Amino acid sequence: MGQRTGDLSAPARLAAPDEEIGADELALATRNHGLPLEALRYDVTPPGLHYVLTHYDIPYVPGAGAWRLTVDGHVRAPLDLSLADLLSFPQVTTRVTLECAGNGRALLRPRPVSQPWLVEAVGTADWTGVPLRLLLAEAGADPAAVDVVFTGADHGVERGVEQDYQRALPLALALGGDPEVLVATAMNGAPLPPQHGRPLRLIVPGWYGMAQVKWLRSVTVSDVPFTGFQQSVAYRMRRTADEEGEPVTRIAPRALLMPPGFPDFMSRTRVVREGPVRLFGRAWSGQAPVSSVEVSTDRGASWMPAVLEPEVHRWAWRGWHCTWAAAPGQHAVGARASDSAGCTQPLEQRWNRGGFANNAVRYVRVVCVDDAPSP
Amino acid sequence: MGQRTGDLSAPARLAAPDEEIGADELALATRNHGLPLEALRYDVTPPGLHYVLTHYDIPYVPGAGAWRLTVDGHVRAPLDLSLADLLSFPQVTTRVTLECAGNGRALLRPRPVSQPWLVEAVGTADWTGVPLRLLLAEAGADPAAVDVVFTGADHGVERGVEQDYQRALPLALALGGDPEVLVATAMNGAPLPPQHGRPLRLIVPGWYGMAQVKWLRSVTVSDVPFTGFQQSVAYRMRRTADEEGEPVTRIAPRALLMPPGFPDFMSRTRVVREGPVRLFGRAWSGQAPVSSVEVSTDRGASWMPAVLEPEVHRWAWRGWHCTWAAAPGQHAVGARASDSAGCTQPLEQRWNRGGFANNAVRYVRVVCVDDAPSP
Repeated sequence: MGQRTGDLSAPARLAAPDEEIGADELALATRNHGLPLEALRYDVTPPGLHYVLTHYDIPYVPGAGAWRLTVDGHVRAPLDLSLADLLSFPQVTTRVTLECAGNGRALLRPRPVSQPWLVEAVGTADWTGVPLRLLLAEAGADPAAVDVVFTGADHGVERGVEQDYQRALPLALALGGDPEVLVATAMNGAPLPPQHGRPLRLIVPGWYGMAQVKWLRSVTVSDVPFTGFQQSVAYRMRRTADEEGEPVTRIAPRALLMPPGFPDFMSRTRVVREGPVRLFGRAWSGQAPVSSVEVSTDRGASWMPAVLEPEVHRWAWRGWHCTWAAAPGQHAVGARASDSAGCTQPLEQRWNRGGFANNAVRYVRVVCVDDAPSP
Repeated sequence: MGQRTGDLSAPARLAAPDEEIGADELALATRNHGLPLEALRYDVTPPGLHYVLTHYDIPYVPGAGAWRLTVDGHVRAPLDLSLADLLSFPQVTTRVTLECAGNGRALLRPRPVSQPWLVEAVGTADWTGVPLRLLLAEAGADPAAVDVVFTGADHGVERGVEQDYQRALPLALALGGDPEVLVATAMNGAPLPPQHGRPLRLIVPGWYGMAQVKWLRSVTVSDVPFTGFQQSVAYRMRRTADEEGEPVTRIAPRALLMPPGFPDFMSRTRVVREGPVRLFGRAWSGQAPVSSVEVSTDRGASWMPAVLEPEVHRWAWRGWHCTWAAAPGQHAVGARASDSAGCTQPLEQRWNRGGFANNAVRYVRVVCVDDAPSP
């Protein structure tokens, strides 16, 4: 970018202690969107309710017939595939919960200034596509290579760097079958909607959203580690600006509550009637299967176990439920998940400059009333 | 609501001069969502990109087979209709641009504290349903009645008032054919998605979104003016809190620009290359057909006419375009629409306490560069 771009692209920064959401963050919040939390009730998120985060613009793909996917780099025989070519490979369908790495960012103090998610950047879909390992086998990927780089068609500037969106996976992961990485051509049995990557996207079960490259154009096998912006600058866990930081990879465990009762419009505070209230929600972890969910109705002072529904789809969220004997007054109701790798959601934030993977327990404010008629 | 609700539901208020977006507004912004402006390119907005504003929760309707719509009140013969019953009436399909009455609210100074839309609360769909007048004729609505009240299944509290969402239309409008009010059962040829009113919603072409009652359960003919919360308290144009105010009704004219070039992630500032740049956008008015669109690239100092595409669908937005000879530097690019009723978008805000119908021209910040390679 030249000198004339002026203050087009500001450096990453933290909000001041008393700084509320500014114009830039609001512009992102109005165009990207989360799952309305009542939609946690659906096993598979209905179209349009799944979270969406677009770094730049949604590319325009009027007809998918002309789309090409190239597989190149350190391969024996590069591929140049149409959608029809891709459909001639075996297809796999997997139910996957996707979550933005920045989910929970706007709750951090100090707040990293970026897309200001609270906790709703999540959704679950059935993704159908070709296993990536079959394409890499067809091309004859060099087994001594290091990374596989995925390039999307979305183009923009980020922190001063003009770029197509690019991310990489280690070759071993790309070639492995656990998780089975897909080049997806369908979402919930239909062609991908524009905002979810039409006509092609990567699906990496268990990983945060930054790995799920949309509008996928090329797959490049590399013999050196990929150091592009989204790999080496963004999506690192850093406490200071100058450290290298650990990469953001798999989804940390999280349980979310489907807010009970009905809401106040402006505060989203919930109202329930006195008596038994069924609490329901979802829990997931990309690290290991969820092993338990606990619920608190007193902002973490005490916890009760929830009933966890069986795991049917390894990479999808699981339902959980319990019954709360609601008494009149104000309550802070939350849930926390643990996974079989021994991770439990923390009660306090684990802060980092990018605002990634903040899975601290979030409480829903509930007012229980004893004096109002049922609706 | 009883005394125990405490500070559950705060009164409407204006933000202080230096007050940025707070936690309540952010919670609304993350669950409701606007049209990503690059999606202005589509004549019909793809599913999931159309704006959504839900006052309370999206009701859960697992199967539409049990849904009933009642038509009652001052009628000769009340109706109790299933979806199948509704489909036995003649069906009409209309392409309609819907816009939230609060679109533009977050740009007002002082800012009314509510859903903080910038300008993206808009979308266009093909809606199919039964003309309301046929249902009212079947029921034998009393021609001396005044209002027709529509009740949705969404339930919540707003400014201290527990309610099902309700709005009314004047009987003359409900019985008339211009605009043709629909009880819609399909959006873009498919059953309504949950967030758009599954299984039934009202469509009132040319009116702001508050009239388009979702999850429609009852149609009640009334011989007195409806004074429910959403009619008499909310959705009024007031400059002071104690005045009655004019009701919010039809959509004021607006033109929006599909942002040219490519964006910076955080600021959403656009980058274009030097030379001719095609500018494209949409324009609409619920008051009268759009008669012209003008474009400014210098924040309103000068205006050039755009080419307006022909009107094919009276109630849908129309495309417009022009070519801009972009020179290196920073530019503020905007558009303004005029309609054949003589209304032109203002350059300055027309402020009201609810933040409704703010159609002041909005400029997109564009940086033109002469020194960067094409992507």
